[in-house]
Amino acid sequence: MKLYDFALAPNPRRVRMFLAEKGIEIPSVQINTREREQFGAPFIKINPFSVVPVLELDDGTCIGESVAICRYLEALHPAPPLMGRDAKDVAIVEMWNRRAEVEGMQAASETVRNSAPMFADRGIAGVPGGFPQIPALVERGKKRMARFFEFWERQLAGNAFVAGPHFTIADITSFITIDFAKRADISIPAECGNVARWYEKIANRPSAQA
Amino acid sequence: MKLYDFALAPNPRRVRMFLAEKGIEIPSVQINTREREQFGAPFIKINPFSVVPVLELDDGTCIGESVAICRYLEALHPAPPLMGRDAKDVAIVEMWNRRAEVEGMQAASETVRNSAPMFADRGIAGVPGGFPQIPALVERGKKRMARFFEFWERQLAGNAFVAGPHFTIADITSFITIDFAKRADISIPAECGNVARWYEKIANRPSAQA
Repeated sequence: MKLYDFALAPNPRRVRMFLAEKGIEIPSVQINTREREQFGAPFIKINPFSVVPVLELDDGTCIGESVAICRYLEALHPAPPLMGRDAKDVAIVEMWNRRAEVEGMQAASETVRNSAPMFADRGIAGVPGGFPQIPALVERGKKRMARFFEFWERQLAGNAFVAGPHFTIADITSFITIDFAKRADISIPAECGNVARWYEKIANRPSAQA
Repeated sequence: MKLYDFALAPNPRRVRMFLAEKGIEIPSVQINTREREQFGAPFIKINPFSVVPVLELDDGTCIGESVAICRYLEALHPAPPLMGRDAKDVAIVEMWNRRAEVEGMQAASETVRNSAPMFADRGIAGVPGGFPQIPALVERGKKRMARFFEFWERQLAGNAFVAGPHFTIADITSFITIDFAKRADISIPAECGNVARWYEKIANRPSAQA
């Protein structure tokens, strides 16, 4: 297997952190998206949608989308479970992971992508151009991030981890969302003590370095 | 079990179509989101994020997020498989279902939510107000839908269904995306003959009436 990765991008980091928690090592190839390598003919054969990460299997099958990759790795290496322990728990973890994507990662992304100069004319991922940044989305993304922190503050008041008593992929997505949002100068609000404590705990796991 | 549903909303329809393909019947409760019922205290106890669908289990656990609900039902009722047949196929189906969400459903949603008068001040789902519509997103969503049709036209040139040889949840998401986009007067482009043929085939399945 081979992972198409980019060290500076948040979604590939989700897969790297997942791998580190599992104790799995997979050779990786860096696709430098800051140099537009994702739009070159060689990578378009790997993923016509021009986004990383992609996991290439030994038979040549290319799996895109971070969570699809993680679910495949979870099936191959079930321990420790990071996507739920029975049918009900799998559903709860997926619910929280998706909420982290919708309320968190999408909010952070719309702020970063619509403000950072490197994304000029590329307000959405995977397009070589033709999608101008929309300034109103910078502010909307910040308001959405404020909502995200409020919801997570409540959830983490009564739970050790985002989806309940165990560390899961929902913690990975939430943690990387918060790190990604720093690029737009968004940080954990002072009143979100539960989020701050949880963040510190996750940051201290060796996988946070991945 | 009980499904919190709304007949006119696209995401609950994904679950209803999934249930129909499985031949499962679950009692449902309508949450009229046009009457803002999702923001009332009774529903906020069911889902603090104020979105439908939600599946309430007999032990009171509430599962939100359409795909989390479907995955739970897939575990309980494996036949016919709609989310993949082995680890690799599960990953391929999830990849295509997520692409349908990101390239299709999100694009259609940003067009509809930022233009329809009923969503004034609610440009994103789940908020009672305070998020004004952003007119630039109407045009961006239309451009994204054009991209969606191009990609699907190529994928359906060599595949009977979106994720390969079998009908899956990726077909459900794609089909409902196209129906939802009609609300913004977006239709399948004339040059997308493969998409049109596939759409017709899905529309003829009894589950399309769900």
